[in-house]
Amino acid sequence: MLGVCYYPEHWPEERWEEDFKAMRALGLRYVRLGEFAWSALEPTPGALRWGWLDRVLDLAQKEGLAVVLGTPTATPPKWLVDRYPEILPVDREGRRRNFGGRRHYCFSSPAYREETARIVALLAERYGRHPAVVGFQVDNEFGCHGTVRCYCPNCREAFRGWLRAKYGTIDALNAAWGTVFWSQTYRDFGEVELPHLTVAEANPSHLLDYYRFASDQVRAYNRFQVDLLRDNAPGRFITHNFMGFFTDLDPFALAEDLDFAAWDSYPLGFTDLMPLPQEEKVQWARTGHPDVAAFHHDLYRGVGRGRFWVMEQQPGPVNWAPHNPSPAPGMVRLWTWEAIAHGAEVVSYFRWRQAPFAQEQMQAGFNRPDFQPEVAFFEVQRVAEELSALPLPPAGCAPVALVYDSEAAWVFEIQPQGAEWKYLTLVFSFYSVFRRLGLEVDIFKPGAELGGYGLVVVPSLPIVRKEALEALSQADGLVIVGPRSGSKTEKFQIPPEIPPGALQALLPLKVVRVESLPPGLLEEAEGPWGRFAFGVWREWVETDLPPLLRFTDGGGILFRRGRYLYLAAWPSPELLFALCQSLAEEAGLHPRFLPEGLRLRRRGPLVFAFNYGPEVVEAPAPPGVRFLLGDRRIPPHDLAVWEET
Amino acid sequence: MLGVCYYPEHWPEERWEEDFKAMRALGLRYVRLGEFAWSALEPTPGALRWGWLDRVLDLAQKEGLAVVLGTPTATPPKWLVDRYPEILPVDREGRRRNFGGRRHYCFSSPAYREETARIVALLAERYGRHPAVVGFQVDNEFGCHGTVRCYCPNCREAFRGWLRAKYGTIDALNAAWGTVFWSQTYRDFGEVELPHLTVAEANPSHLLDYYRFASDQVRAYNRFQVDLLRDNAPGRFITHNFMGFFTDLDPFALAEDLDFAAWDSYPLGFTDLMPLPQEEKVQWARTGHPDVAAFHHDLYRGVGRGRFWVMEQQPGPVNWAPHNPSPAPGMVRLWTWEAIAHGAEVVSYFRWRQAPFAQEQMQAGFNRPDFQPEVAFFEVQRVAEELSALPLPPAGCAPVALVYDSEAAWVFEIQPQGAEWKYLTLVFSFYSVFRRLGLEVDIFKPGAELGGYGLVVVPSLPIVRKEALEALSQADGLVIVGPRSGSKTEKFQIPPEIPPGALQALLPLKVVRVESLPPGLLEEAEGPWGRFAFGVWREWVETDLPPLLRFTDGGGILFRRGRYLYLAAWPSPELLFALCQSLAEEAGLHPRFLPEGLRLRRRGPLVFAFNYGPEVVEAPAPPGVRFLLGDRRIPPHDLAVWEET
Amino acid sequence: MLGVCYYPEHWPEERWEEDFKAMRALGLRYVRLGEFAWSALEPTPGALRWGWLDRVLDLAQKEGLAVVLGTPTATPPKWLVDRYPEILPVDREGRRRNFGGRRHYCFSSPAYREETARIVALLAERYGRHPAVVGFQVDNEFGCHGTVRCYCPNCREAFRGWLRAKYGTIDALNAAWGTVFWSQTYRDFGEVELPHLTVAEANPSHLLDYYRFASDQVRAYNRFQVDLLRDNAPGRFITHNFMGFFTDLDPFALAEDLDFAAWDSYPLGFTDLMPLPQEEKVQWARTGHPDVAAFHHDLYRGVGRGRFWVMEQQPGPVNWAPHNPSPAPGMVRLWTWEAIAHGAEVVSYFRWRQAPFAQEQMQAGFNRPDFQPEVAFFEVQRVAEELSALPLPPAGCAPVALVYDSEAAWVFEIQPQGAEWKYLTLVFSFYSVFRRLGLEVDIFKPGAELGGYGLVVVPSLPIVRKEALEALSQADGLVIVGPRSGSKTEKFQIPPEIPPGALQALLPLKVVRVESLPPGLLEEAEGPWGRFAFGVWREWVETDLPPLLRFTDGGGILFRRGRYLYLAAWPSPELLFALCQSLAEEAGLHPRFLPEGLRLRRRGPLVFAFNYGPEVVEAPAPPGVRFLLGDRRIPPHDLAVWEET
Ligand SMILES: [Zn+2]
Ligand SMILES: [Zn+2]
Ligand SMILES: [Zn+2]
Repeated sequence: MLGVCYYPEHWPEERWEEDFKAMRALGLRYVRLGEFAWSALEPTPGALRWGWLDRVLDLAQKEGLAVVLGTPTATPPKWLVDRYPEILPVDREGRRRNFGGRRHYCFSSPAYREETARIVALLAERYGRHPAVVGFQVDNEFGCHGTVRCYCPNCREAFRGWLRAKYGTIDALNAAWGTVFWSQTYRDFGEVELPHLTVAEANPSHLLDYYRFASDQVRAYNRFQVDLLRDNAPGRFITHNFMGFFTDLDPFALAEDLDFAAWDSYPLGFTDLMPLPQEEKVQWARTGHPDVAAFHHDLYRGVGRGRFWVMEQQPGPVNWAPHNPSPAPGMVRLWTWEAIAHGAEVVSYFRWRQAPFAQEQMQAGFNRPDFQPEVAFFEVQRVAEELSALPLPPAGCAPVALVYDSEAAWVFEIQPQGAEWKYLTLVFSFYSVFRRLGLEVDIFKPGAELGGYGLVVVPSLPIVRKEALEALSQADGLVIVGPRSGSKTEKFQIPPEIPPGALQALLPLKVVRVESLPPGLLEEAEGPWGRFAFGVWREWVETDLPPLLRFTDGGGILFRRGRYLYLAAWPSPELLFALCQSLAEEAGLHPRFLPEGLRLRRRGPLVFAFNYGPEVVEAPAPPGVRFLLGDRRIPPHDLAVWEET
Repeated sequence: MLGVCYYPEHWPEERWEEDFKAMRALGLRYVRLGEFAWSALEPTPGALRWGWLDRVLDLAQKEGLAVVLGTPTATPPKWLVDRYPEILPVDREGRRRNFGGRRHYCFSSPAYREETARIVALLAERYGRHPAVVGFQVDNEFGCHGTVRCYCPNCREAFRGWLRAKYGTIDALNAAWGTVFWSQTYRDFGEVELPHLTVAEANPSHLLDYYRFASDQVRAYNRFQVDLLRDNAPGRFITHNFMGFFTDLDPFALAEDLDFAAWDSYPLGFTDLMPLPQEEKVQWARTGHPDVAAFHHDLYRGVGRGRFWVMEQQPGPVNWAPHNPSPAPGMVRLWTWEAIAHGAEVVSYFRWRQAPFAQEQMQAGFNRPDFQPEVAFFEVQRVAEELSALPLPPAGCAPVALVYDSEAAWVFEIQPQGAEWKYLTLVFSFYSVFRRLGLEVDIFKPGAELGGYGLVVVPSLPIVRKEALEALSQADGLVIVGPRSGSKTEKFQIPPEIPPGALQALLPLKVVRVESLPPGLLEEAEGPWGRFAFGVWREWVETDLPPLLRFTDGGGILFRRGRYLYLAAWPSPELLFALCQSLAEEAGLHPRFLPEGLRLRRRGPLVFAFNYGPEVVEAPAPPGVRFLLGDRRIPPHDLAVWEET
Repeated sequence: MLGVCYYPEHWPEERWEEDFKAMRALGLRYVRLGEFAWSALEPTPGALRWGWLDRVLDLAQKEGLAVVLGTPTATPPKWLVDRYPEILPVDREGRRRNFGGRRHYCFSSPAYREETARIVALLAERYGRHPAVVGFQVDNEFGCHGTVRCYCPNCREAFRGWLRAKYGTIDALNAAWGTVFWSQTYRDFGEVELPHLTVAEANPSHLLDYYRFASDQVRAYNRFQVDLLRDNAPGRFITHNFMGFFTDLDPFALAEDLDFAAWDSYPLGFTDLMPLPQEEKVQWARTGHPDVAAFHHDLYRGVGRGRFWVMEQQPGPVNWAPHNPSPAPGMVRLWTWEAIAHGAEVVSYFRWRQAPFAQEQMQAGFNRPDFQPEVAFFEVQRVAEELSALPLPPAGCAPVALVYDSEAAWVFEIQPQGAEWKYLTLVFSFYSVFRRLGLEVDIFKPGAELGGYGLVVVPSLPIVRKEALEALSQADGLVIVGPRSGSKTEKFQIPPEIPPGALQALLPLKVVRVESLPPGLLEEAEGPWGRFAFGVWREWVETDLPPLLRFTDGGGILFRRGRYLYLAAWPSPELLFALCQSLAEEAGLHPRFLPEGLRLRRRGPLVFAFNYGPEVVEAPAPPGVRFLLGDRRIPPHDLAVWEET
């Protein structure tokens, strides 16, 4: 199903009906609205103006549109900030962050909790049973603009409380953090500060607990809104729109309080911002890197326990990346189908019409500011027609499971130990390899059941909790575990049995030394799949297991016991490809070697093939299959769908 | 005429007479002094020490030197700052900027207005009728060190007042800024903050109004001094020394209150700092880029309504650029003649003698700290002799007019939309092409009359006010309008008729989509002048006009109706050259193709040819002309002057 | 002799005896401890817990280990900071720096002086006569994390007092700083601020005095502790562990109050951080640049007036550089011998066992966190055995003396005048050339006697005080003086006789102009040793001396009178090599041309040869010598020692 984001408060009332009719005519079913409308609803404290929203919802109902109503808490009005200036967040540099953009509130502020309670309860009471309203979006893009972590006095108080609840006694905290180091022993929770502007680097356990706390605060704030909504909106779903390449927040935890996950998909903006070589940024500037959207579809499908929406889909140039190219013709359609192939229940575009004013005036929509349709309009028209003709079977499980961990991102952010070590880069490089191999991936948090997967990939899991170890133990496929896994305890200490810590139960080896390498320093390795040059990270392993791959100085780089493998280095793309291909073959997953711009995705018996490249490619379909969309010859930026049984 | 900057307060009194005699002997007529002398004049509050300056001026008078007296407000003394700490400016990061350098005051400070009134009135009363004093310089280099924009409480108050005066009602402001976006609706002007340290980017209309306000505050402060001076200094001119490559301030507006403009010309420092490829920085390290000084001469001649001085001319290495090379021998003479050829009424060098102490001790002067003459001394001696032998006809109009707009710089600073889009880079690349074509350029603000110019160039003019449109309509030459022109209303909104907005009256086309491109992503275009590869910026145009140049995907890049042309992309230097050459030929301007280091400038019937390059070049003079300086063979870093009729 | 750093407070008491026994078994004699143990000693204010340290020291005594006891002032406990929050330092940005790392105190804080007096006196009283305690280390790495320079109110007060003591009258200060420039004349010392956050750059004399003050404050604080210790610890030495490539602090001055110097040697970390081309960083990533440790050995031997220790020697990967590679096998042994060859009295490793917790958990030690020995353990075992078999003669004087000046580093930090001008880079490039020439270097502060050295090198000495001039006058070898020497007075002014100022007594020439060059702008020079291309810096010299080397435009680059030479440019490595080789030959020092990775060091009749390279090299030993370690064929990362008479 398709939807769109709409801001009735931006347009004259006489245009609403016409817009809603045009949405329906285009084939849209959902409309999201309201998420930045606080000052339109409450222009002065307590004087609620419901009228316009009443009329919008009635009109939507009349036109057959289902409304997702956003709570407006991402943008507290100026009067609220002036009344409670302490709700403004404080950045890592200790500077109060001002009103004038959005997300100008601290998750720990008691005053903001009260104001949130007031506006959300009012909203839910008034519209929770409105027939047009099918669900709610809580707030908008939690954490955007670096807002998960705040350094204000309210956060300091809340952090101290969080620590007290976690540790019980200050001695337990001292032991966990190793505060005996550098004389940091605390006598009371009230002595603990927020870890910023320290003279030397802060204690890593202190930082990790603070990052956990900050993520927890967002979750608690979301939960606070969810509870208010549930009370007043029977039968309505509640979701939130997560972001791409964003790790400050643990989406798996937060989504436990949601009905499903949603995310905002801007493939071109992400491609310009992600750490790719410049030539790849240029190569994919108009299509987005072929795995960027797919990765997040899989991630948020996991986060949503199988259910997800794309709440904001890029329909044209955006305004917030360093460079904002125009999508190649066909890409909006392709991205939509990629989302659907991955199981998206709804793809909702951002936005119905480009606003001619304010911060996002350069972000394109379905319609231009002069009310004429944009390119994307016609591409979506086509998707809507195609969709109505194509019955979608439910998506099954993927052959590959990937374990993704927000906490891992925090651990390595705190302690990279090598400037090039980036958690998301490692995860994405594993993910990309499977896409090139034509293999679908399901993404799980640590501890999720992994049974039934032919191949389980753990790019890196520094902290291995009991449930994660159990899940890995019970996996019945091949399990490949990446470097630095098991290298820390939950307290951010080196485990007593040294790395990989608890994983030694599965992989009897010890990592006795690690090193990070400067750019240009490559180690050569050799094995059954050829020779590979490695950089970034290397580990020394003591074990009785014979290495499957060795550095030329003799050190092992890949070890295996039974179905468990351990990779003791940052893998080069070439090694990763050879290794994953080999394991996939062993697991009977029938990997392919797809052309550079081609990607596949199955949904039940349907196979979707997407051509992100600039040349025609042949669909890797068995002879004689029936094509439901397109045909064997896939033009650039186009797709084909066929049925395999 | 020639002059020099002198700091009598830096030297023992017994040296003054000798210095003044030496200046006259060198052929100098003007001496600027006093602009940093506040604490020498008023070492403690209210205790004025006029004696030394009395003696300096009498001596100057005796020696036949005409004095330009600076008001000393760029450097309030420490006692003043201690008495009124609130005059210290606050930077964008919210930090109070301290005493210890210069320009440590806020233009909005009421206390500083009072202190300014006091010292300037005293100065004007005492010296406004002194026979040696021929004019005043207000303050020094307004805006230097990022001081146009201040974020202090006084500025906040003043900004609120400025908005109230502009908009009248807060509803008008809300509508203009589109504050309905992100719930930023204000109820009162007292709610509006300065746009900094916001969590997400601030509203662009808010930013633009703040930048306008900040520029206005400087103008008002200058006007405040001008009024004080006019009252007490009959017949004396008033000017200000503007800076190079500086856009925070609108010089056209400020100069309306001056008798003429002046600027400070440091070709080597600017060349090291401007955004050139490193190889060009090296190429021009000892000469300055050949168009840097010329561009500013033309700009400030326009700002000065035809009249300008060079108030500070670089005579040797400076101290403030990342690299400070020595000018090639001959360059001080060449720069001087370039200024004169552009119509400079006076070229005044900075400074008479290198100070052995304090911040600028590494900045060379005419004399070394040991009182010996520097290289520049002898070059200027030669210029003075040459000048006295060469009668200078008045300068006429140039064949090309270029429209320059400070507001355009602000718009693109606020909303580059592509990291490489820089207003000055675009303007300078147009300007440089005409210099290479041997064509003089006059520079105007938008709205100035453009009649009589064979070619009018508008590199980019995002906000097209009524008077600018009228002036363009009444131009009688060819008019080339660059990308993003007409793309914003005065309110910083997309115009209702979409870009190029009001320009559609002249150019019936619509820009329906724009994009910025990452470095390395080039689009190919083809047309009558060849094939060109473009990056940075592209626009999609809907129009019935046939394109003169097309991208290889068919999109038009250059459109024309009658004498108006629209360029829908960031031009490559190659295209710009071909296009401007072709238009100049059509306009009958007889463009040439000058060698890389050669530049021409006419002043009446005189043609000046400047050789910035390291090789001898031949002067492009018709056969048989009379050479007034040099001859047909121009050595490196030298010049020739001949008469054409 | 060998030692190790140990943190008993990090380990269970039952392990101490076992650890001490293992240290002795390994051949270690010294153990440093206690320097971060304040909160272990005084967990709450006034409640001292001596018991554990009593037992540690008694145990050390019993096991035959000599203890170096650190004063714990680098890490004041949280309760102390909470009681006196004003001890926290303030950074250049004006931000209070928080508790949570280490070195969170201001050297000017009266409260911290009191607390220091209390804890150091208690410690000295209790342990100053303990038989295990042979000496004290004051604090730890003074200045680490940018803590020499603080911008707090206490420092402002102290700086004003320091200025008053230095100048006596404010007029003297005004004259010295040239405050007449930019109206900065002060009426009272109480008007002077700390030089930061100024609108334009601060006055250089102001900055230099502040940098001197800041260095003096550290020295005074150290002296304060030394006095407390001397009173209570008869016969115990007092030292401090200095850092590498660190210039904020003048180590020569501070060490006047110590018995000898110590320093912390981390060759790999320094190599990753120093300004080397990336390819050299890669080349030496696992060995350290071959001259990094040697340079500091020579520097701190000079600082220690002939006596120094390595207090912390890197034994494996560290955690604080951008990249932290593993040392090549053999390097820990090689580094140890390099230190000993340079005269180190003790080499003490950091640390006995890798801590599994807190900030330095990724820094390797002799033992892993699981109590197993690391690679370094076995290398040191070998060194200990070799040491006991090799009688070490005293080290003699080197043939080359190098003059090193912290103040020079400050002058050029304040006024680089060219972005690439870095004092340490210049010094290190001179030093490296002599290492390649097989010539030892002694390092002195300006003013030290230089008699007996065949060659004296002054890379750059901007401020030449009377005693420095005298020492150079009395040198009896060749003296090469580098660019910008003599270019400033003690007041940070250009000397009246212009540069090289007082050095004109030795070198009758005047530097009449200087310039810095952008990268890529090279000047060609030619002379007896060939042609060389130069960048970065060039000077113009007026003199009757004929140049030994000329730029191709005729300007001289190298001048000589008698045994004094002046170099008027930033030297290229090629020129430096040719020049130093030639001078060394003239001086009869018998320079060699060593292979790239080979280095020599004499200690009495012993010659040590170190192979930092990856290939076997031949020892440059005369035929027939006796090898005491290794032999003529030196494997990679190995050494040889032979006797020459
Ligand atoms: Zn907060
Ligand atoms: Zn202000
Ligand atoms: Zn301080």
